[in-house]
Amino acid sequence: MKLHEKAIMPKGFKCASKNCGLKDKGNDLSVFYSEVRANAAGIFTKNKFPGCPVILGREIIKNGLLRAIIVNSKVSNVGTGRQGIENARRMAIAVSKEFSVPQNEVIMSSTGVIAKPLPIEQIEKGVKGISKLLNDDPIAGAEGIMTTDTYPKALSVSVDDAVITIIGKGAGMIEPNMATMLVYILTDAEMETPVLDDMLRKAADKSFNMLSVDTDTSTSDTCLIMANGLAGKVDEKRFSETLQFACIEMTKMLARDGEGATKLLLANILGAKTEDEAKFIAKAIINSPLVKTMAYGADPNIGRILMAIGKCTACEIQPEKIEIKVNNKLIYLNEARVDFDEAEVRKLLSGDYVEITANLNVGTGQATAYGCDLTEGYIEENAAYYSS
Amino acid sequence: MKLHEKAIMPKGFKCASKNCGLKDKGNDLSVFYSEVRANAAGIFTKNKFPGCPVILGREIIKNGLLRAIIVNSKVSNVGTGRQGIENARRMAIAVSKEFSVPQNEVIMSSTGVIAKPLPIEQIEKGVKGISKLLNDDPIAGAEGIMTTDTYPKALSVSVDDAVITIIGKGAGMIEPNMATMLVYILTDAEMETPVLDDMLRKAADKSFNMLSVDTDTSTSDTCLIMANGLAGKVDEKRFSETLQFACIEMTKMLARDGEGATKLLLANILGAKTEDEAKFIAKAIINSPLVKTMAYGADPNIGRILMAIGKCTACEIQPEKIEIKVNNKLIYLNEARVDFDEAEVRKLLSGDYVEITANLNVGTGQATAYGCDLTEGYIEENAAYYSS
Repeated sequence: MKLHEKAIMPKGFKCASKNCGLKDKGNDLSVFYSEVRANAAGIFTKNKFPGCPVILGREIIKNGLLRAIIVNSKVSNVGTGRQGIENARRMAIAVSKEFSVPQNEVIMSSTGVIAKPLPIEQIEKGVKGISKLLNDDPIAGAEGIMTTDTYPKALSVSVDDAVITIIGKGAGMIEPNMATMLVYILTDAEMETPVLDDMLRKAADKSFNMLSVDTDTSTSDTCLIMANGLAGKVDEKRFSETLQFACIEMTKMLARDGEGATKLLLANILGAKTEDEAKFIAKAIINSPLVKTMAYGADPNIGRILMAIGKCTACEIQPEKIEIKVNNKLIYLNEARVDFDEAEVRKLLSGDYVEITANLNVGTGQATAYGCDLTEGYIEENAAYYSS
Repeated sequence: MKLHEKAIMPKGFKCASKNCGLKDKGNDLSVFYSEVRANAAGIFTKNKFPGCPVILGREIIKNGLLRAIIVNSKVSNVGTGRQGIENARRMAIAVSKEFSVPQNEVIMSSTGVIAKPLPIEQIEKGVKGISKLLNDDPIAGAEGIMTTDTYPKALSVSVDDAVITIIGKGAGMIEPNMATMLVYILTDAEMETPVLDDMLRKAADKSFNMLSVDTDTSTSDTCLIMANGLAGKVDEKRFSETLQFACIEMTKMLARDGEGATKLLLANILGAKTEDEAKFIAKAIINSPLVKTMAYGADPNIGRILMAIGKCTACEIQPEKIEIKVNNKLIYLNEARVDFDEAEVRKLLSGDYVEITANLNVGTGQATAYGCDLTEGYIEENAAYYSS
């Protein structure tokens, strides 16, 4: 499978973004729109302080049908009580009027600072006339949903005559339990809602749910898929595999652009007792501040990988059976560090891609988790995010 | 209860430290010694990659008797296989000879880099003659066990005629499951081993087990207590309470000196469904990189506290019931941010002590967790720890 060199819109989808005054600079409002009614499914954060758009969104998605998605950045509409629910609803009403589509076929997301009231009047004013800005470049939509992302993210892949396009954002507060920050998947394939829903969950489990930038789970995580059918039927198995491939590619893109990140970090666990244990351990490695700083410093301090595996105290771990590789170079075997050339390992770690593979040799469970290094950039970004 | 202004040794205890060549500068070898046999108990890391001293130590402590503790810093003797076990044993043998005490009454710890062979000959040479350096200042012993600590840590408190003295170290790789990095508790009170063991576990549960600097669980965490009885019997209840007080004070000292830390971070959870849920949520707050950077930046971005509470998806959380205070100032109530003065909250956060209190109002469980902020200092320290 191969990504398109440049993201394109599937048939019948358009998007737009603009500045409606929430941010001083850059776009802060995006719309994704299908010219015909699309089957749709969605998954949301498990955070117990869900944002108002998530609370409403869970209801809206039950219909399994969508025409448009409206997203604002800068203010997340979380921890804002009943007024927040009302404001989220007003976002859908505004889009429903602007595009003449049913209100219950519009879903909304908000991302940004928590516990600040949503400036709904500005958003309503922004929605007016946004239909005239609609265009075919997914990047245009990606631009309005960014918070601390350093660039807008979109990718496309083909399956039969259909296209799957993913627009995503997310740089910090990322350890999804259900989905990552904000991800919108658009396709012109024809797919029934229950099938879409099932495929989305399976793909997210291998991709967005295995991503962690900083262990913090957003209150707004949302992943939506819209399938408008304009490219006709496609092979279900191929579609499902392609969807998973595309979700993993977007996951890597999000990981690599984690706040302050300089490199993509992958942890593969093989031979775990169960798949769940493999996932847990892979996440522990990806989340360990000491492994993350080791990767950042390109320091061959590989004991930290042992530590991160060992702290998974509920998992089956037998130190004497474990083999560990870094970027395919064997570094730990038979209960001892392999006598490797430190300069060589330092070089392996100094690229922008660090892949840690541990075979636990106690079963057949396997999993891959995605993350990034931890740098001064993360601190700078987050010690003064609010006021910026 | 009040700490002594300066830590002192309980009757019959002495300590010493020196440089035996593991570190370029500073002491790297310490001994804690009781002139008479002491009852003893210990708790160790739950990490599944335990260090060789931990593996051996678990056996030695079963006797419930100790005369001496030998500790080296710089190299941790973890992930070193059978040779590592043999080297740990040789540390005890060397002390047994130097002090003419039974070998099975000597316990050892090693702290530092993981998966490097222990330079046992240097340590054996260092132990020779160390008995001549014994003195009455606990700080002398604390100096030899430091790794990235910025100062040696010891404290004393009196209970009846007895003294409890705690010597500790720990700055990174700290989220104990049983105890923190290295903590040695010495007392001249007379206490039976099973009582000591029980009191130690209870005190650690409220103190060291509630400490987290970076979510990473050391492979070497060890907490030992020796009671040599030279001050006679003391009231058990008072002793237990005093021990807990002293352990909490040492926990705060360790938290405040976390790698790169500029402030102590406390999270109090009240009104949780159970004590376990209170502990879990308190730890989630203390461990959240976004809460930690908020504290560092003194940024009144209090939504991050909601996020950290909400990500405890297995706990009973009802957003509409939650009240949150920062340094005793109410900031969140009735599902909305209290309309506070941002400059005032910024000032509260800018000191070297940040206390977050959340009342969940769903039960009676409560807990306090201890940690620190996350700064560039942590990154600097850990991106090049190994090679330093």
